[in-house]
Amino acid sequence: MINVGIVGATGYTGVELLRLLSAHEDVEIKIVTSNSEKGKAVTDVFPSLRSTIDLKFVEHESEHLGLCDLIFFATPHATAMHYVPKLLEKGCKIIDLSADFRIKNADVWEQWYKEKHACPELLESAVYGLPELNRAEIKSANLIANPGCYPTAITLALLPAVKNGLINVKDIIADAKSGVSGAGRKAALAFQFSEVAESFKAYSASGHRHLPEMMQALNQVQQNDEINLTFVPHLVPMNRGMFATVYVKPLDHSVVMQKHYADFYAEEQFVDVMPEGSHPDTRSVKTSNTCRIAIHPGESESQPTVILSVIDNLVKGAAGQAIQNMNLMFGLDEGTSLMSPGLVP
Amino acid sequence: MINVGIVGATGYTGVELLRLLSAHEDVEIKIVTSNSEKGKAVTDVFPSLRSTIDLKFVEHESEHLGLCDLIFFATPHATAMHYVPKLLEKGCKIIDLSADFRIKNADVWEQWYKEKHACPELLESAVYGLPELNRAEIKSANLIANPGCYPTAITLALLPAVKNGLINVKDIIADAKSGVSGAGRKAALAFQFSEVAESFKAYSASGHRHLPEMMQALNQVQQNDEINLTFVPHLVPMNRGMFATVYVKPLDHSVVMQKHYADFYAEEQFVDVMPEGSHPDTRSVKTSNTCRIAIHPGESESQPTVILSVIDNLVKGAAGQAIQNMNLMFGLDEGTSLMSPGLVP
Amino acid sequence: MINVGIVGATGYTGVELLRLLSAHEDVEIKIVTSNSEKGKAVTDVFPSLRSTIDLKFVEHESEHLGLCDLIFFATPHATAMHYVPKLLEKGCKIIDLSADFRIKNADVWEQWYKEKHACPELLESAVYGLPELNRAEIKSANLIANPGCYPTAITLALLPAVKNGLINVKDIIADAKSGVSGAGRKAALAFQFSEVAESFKAYSASGHRHLPEMMQALNQVQQNDEINLTFVPHLVPMNRGMFATVYVKPLDHSVVMQKHYADFYAEEQFVDVMPEGSHPDTRSVKTSNTCRIAIHPGESESQPTVILSVIDNLVKGAAGQAIQNMNLMFGLDEGTSLMSPGLVP
Amino acid sequence: MINVGIVGATGYTGVELLRLLSAHEDVEIKIVTSNSEKGKAVTDVFPSLRSTIDLKFVEHESEHLGLCDLIFFATPHATAMHYVPKLLEKGCKIIDLSADFRIKNADVWEQWYKEKHACPELLESAVYGLPELNRAEIKSANLIANPGCYPTAITLALLPAVKNGLINVKDIIADAKSGVSGAGRKAALAFQFSEVAESFKAYSASGHRHLPEMMQALNQVQQNDEINLTFVPHLVPMNRGMFATVYVKPLDHSVVMQKHYADFYAEEQFVDVMPEGSHPDTRSVKTSNTCRIAIHPGESESQPTVILSVIDNLVKGAAGQAIQNMNLMFGLDEGTSLMSPGLVP
Repeated sequence: MINVGIVGATGYTGVELLRLLSAHEDVEIKIVTSNSEKGKAVTDVFPSLRSTIDLKFVEHESEHLGLCDLIFFATPHATAMHYVPKLLEKGCKIIDLSADFRIKNADVWEQWYKEKHACPELLESAVYGLPELNRAEIKSANLIANPGCYPTAITLALLPAVKNGLINVKDIIADAKSGVSGAGRKAALAFQFSEVAESFKAYSASGHRHLPEMMQALNQVQQNDEINLTFVPHLVPMNRGMFATVYVKPLDHSVVMQKHYADFYAEEQFVDVMPEGSHPDTRSVKTSNTCRIAIHPGESESQPTVILSVIDNLVKGAAGQAIQNMNLMFGLDEGTSLMSPGLVP
Repeated sequence: MINVGIVGATGYTGVELLRLLSAHEDVEIKIVTSNSEKGKAVTDVFPSLRSTIDLKFVEHESEHLGLCDLIFFATPHATAMHYVPKLLEKGCKIIDLSADFRIKNADVWEQWYKEKHACPELLESAVYGLPELNRAEIKSANLIANPGCYPTAITLALLPAVKNGLINVKDIIADAKSGVSGAGRKAALAFQFSEVAESFKAYSASGHRHLPEMMQALNQVQQNDEINLTFVPHLVPMNRGMFATVYVKPLDHSVVMQKHYADFYAEEQFVDVMPEGSHPDTRSVKTSNTCRIAIHPGESESQPTVILSVIDNLVKGAAGQAIQNMNLMFGLDEGTSLMSPGLVP
Repeated sequence: MINVGIVGATGYTGVELLRLLSAHEDVEIKIVTSNSEKGKAVTDVFPSLRSTIDLKFVEHESEHLGLCDLIFFATPHATAMHYVPKLLEKGCKIIDLSADFRIKNADVWEQWYKEKHACPELLESAVYGLPELNRAEIKSANLIANPGCYPTAITLALLPAVKNGLINVKDIIADAKSGVSGAGRKAALAFQFSEVAESFKAYSASGHRHLPEMMQALNQVQQNDEINLTFVPHLVPMNRGMFATVYVKPLDHSVVMQKHYADFYAEEQFVDVMPEGSHPDTRSVKTSNTCRIAIHPGESESQPTVILSVIDNLVKGAAGQAIQNMNLMFGLDEGTSLMSPGLVP
Repeated sequence: MINVGIVGATGYTGVELLRLLSAHEDVEIKIVTSNSEKGKAVTDVFPSLRSTIDLKFVEHESEHLGLCDLIFFATPHATAMHYVPKLLEKGCKIIDLSADFRIKNADVWEQWYKEKHACPELLESAVYGLPELNRAEIKSANLIANPGCYPTAITLALLPAVKNGLINVKDIIADAKSGVSGAGRKAALAFQFSEVAESFKAYSASGHRHLPEMMQALNQVQQNDEINLTFVPHLVPMNRGMFATVYVKPLDHSVVMQKHYADFYAEEQFVDVMPEGSHPDTRSVKTSNTCRIAIHPGESESQPTVILSVIDNLVKGAAGQAIQNMNLMFGLDEGTSLMSPGLVP
């Protein structure tokens, strides 16, 4: 039995961890923390968990945290970095769902996150927790930087093409769309129902924090060229779901990209390469840990190939992938508690 | 291992059965039928089930159906009644999620459903599958009439009060609200996204088919008075969820209804009586088999008591309750594959 | 030309006033105030108004306010009462869209709004701005208390029945449902998109501030009996729209309520009595100043009559009704700038 | 007074024409047709128009149609072409909101629309009704091909750049997103609420009918190069709104595209070039005839410039633009009945 703690469990990734872990037979949730809700029962904040979770929130500073085998950080960025060094010393393993340990270069991190990093010395040993990229390293890691939602959807859409050298890496466009839960669970005018419903918009069109993370992941599998990736995120009036439409220029039009993708992901249980020309919708992965990918070759040689990639931003894009990493770290079947198919409707 | 067939598996209750049963360790889905989609792979209709279900739809008439231990009918009303007699003869157990066997009186059924009943002789032995009302009978039944969604939410809201004689049964108002999935999965102008989104309405305000079903269930626990229940259903622009606001007149204002409800449902794992004055939302039961109930006593003696009741119309209101019935019929733990808490968000 | 000021124009009723007034040929908007956004261009907050409104927000305290012929207060409750006395002295007419002047009895107001009233001496002369009830008084008023959204929908649904003595006023139930814009434009966790979308709930089931307002309006047209009205509001995952399902007990079942309603509202251009048995949806009044009402007599004498009433909470329930009042106060055609039909879809 | 007929007025563009024209002081709607609803009152189909429109639907074949000054066709494609020649002979002017007269080359039209064109001889004289491109021709036209919604949003986003030779026309990507009303008002499983809500998807990723229309419009302003435009449409779970994210490669990075756009559209009342770096949302144009455009230059020379363009697909993308064309054809002020700002929320 793995004794687990969750720091910052009042957000959407936190409650999704609670939901998924409550069905995990090898896990016991020992402690959940929240500085804002400390003292309250989890079920007062989330009545959906009545009869499922019988714990009260305690402060992040709680000493009991150090007794856990594994601690998930589901906090906003720039929080985990203040707690992780001490917890690692106590022998806890850590999976950080925030951005604190995703970027190897502390300068780059500080430039995008506008804070001084509290423990840059840990960045080197932190493992970027995308199992399809770093499975072996994850198994033996003590500190996992769980990928962001956009980087998960877009990196998985590009990995076979970039690794196998099939496309011009200097000319990639990723037009991505996210459900509103990606903005987190907090009071903010911009994400009020009446500000968001029945509307659609782009944001951060001139640069988004997730960009350097994707670049780093893709550069891990190629070093020939400087990658040039344009990334524009959009907000969709729905709770869950992420969609990436990725435009790439094949280097050789006689290569069948579909086959490369099918082969590359043949053994991956959470990446589903659909038949060429399919149109995945985000609904098909809602509540599931699967990333579905479909490839549309250009009509002519002058057209880009279009790669469509969908995930549930809270599952494969956050809590589900974190549990997948946990399963790997503790030698369990990788899919434990993650086999539920998509919810319709 | 229970060999299971699902007739009419292309609707929302059908695909919800597939989703929930795919996680049920004692069940093997052997056959799924659809007259409209026969020959197609289940995953062509529901890509969410890729890598989960590997079957093709066959016709309802398939001979293989008779080899199943249990058959779920997830068909529109007036379909199951044409198949059930023969399948019962072959020794199959049946859980019908449609309305065909819910009303004991064939005349009443025919009046509301505008069809001649094909096997009225089975109505008597069919067991109304509300476990909180008929658990013992369900265990030994061969034919279950699975309750409608509105009757589930409203009957559970009223059962303790009516059975314990706490309220004036001649003056009950049930104002109920349903998500759109309750209308089924079919092409209909009235349920197009742009006809339904950003709008709210009542329908069947002068009489709805689910009314006689509730009356019958409530009359099972009281025979003193003629029940007078006014029921107005409404359509909510959301996929899943059902909310009933029930107004009752207590006979004795010194009685604490909260205590009666808490006691009545103390042993029920799928009915959650919340603290007095709570406000459950439908989200708290989304994807879960739970019915949550909250009681608001009137401010003064002249005010009605308000009972709030929420379910997921596709789970406790359909597929989940059907599986709960299956678990009872086959001597399994009643909650098998049904313990998932509500989905947030 | 009427010179108009709007205090608190950054909320949804404020921006709806701006939208509707921009098409009003007899109005010139001279000043808009916002303490939080002072100095900003209106179009920075509402890009929808680019090329329509060319003003900057100033403070509520602005001296220029006193130069207006008419000032709308679109502020939260307990704000207008601090400014109104001085502005009335300067000769401005006032339409307050908040609750500050709606309740004649200051004690009752203070009990529900938990504040000391700043100018109780004005309550008597303030006119409750429901034109269908108080048209004559509105025409000569200097201070209008613009009705709340729930009271508008419910009072209009009950007025003919109560005034003509058709129903038992001791037994009325109003089950009401509102779109999310009714909660106002402010950062609040409870109204975040992901907290509200795909969910439905009741709130304030044990008592809501709009109750005394409705009681007062109905008591204006009958004094025979103490009214007993149970009111439960609900939140619908949509932007605009309000639906009231009102259950009443007719005193004489031979009376045709439909005829009373049709006659009562025959001359009202903003109340539409639909044919008996109709099912209005909120969409049919979206962006329009109309209240649509439909009557469903009970199937039997023991059944209540069900009255359905729909409005757009931001138009007939707020800004539109305020402009209707302005038109009356300034001797204009009552429907000026309010004749737009409902938006589909 | 212009006597107007609307053919096929039961769809969303039809009812939007009715809504907008009902406020147009120079127009009298004389006849509305619908083969499916003939004989019904318009208000039976659209209760929102009660007290606004007092007409019954008649057949498309009605002889009275020929008496109108102007006829709008709001029919599915391949309908108008069967009626237009005869009506033109009778002296009616025509604005066709369908695709029948948009493509000059009949072979191209037949290839995309899979039908034989009924009157290819009219294609040459039909004027493509994008006022920002063809204002002079529209003024004297008898037959207008009203642009599609995607072509309107995307062409307006590209027109200044293409006409002024600022970008590489061989490398343009238009990633576009549409609300569901764009799919029309008809019973179709794919657009049922529960199929579409809480989901997002691409469609026609390998080629969409609106592509040749955009190419033709852009080729009208440049002939130097073969345009290579990749267009992927997506479906957004909302009623109204269209968003285009257009990626272009500037030929000269020292050119300030913002200035070219501001100048190009300086005199256009329905195109709003926002400040550089703005993020328009579709809400800002909901119910309005405006197209808002924002430009985001690439961070480096190797990055594309991103152009964001939003319209209301039913207004500037359909009915509003049709009325704008009507105003031009009849010598009225171009904005008559079209000056309403966007609806918030």
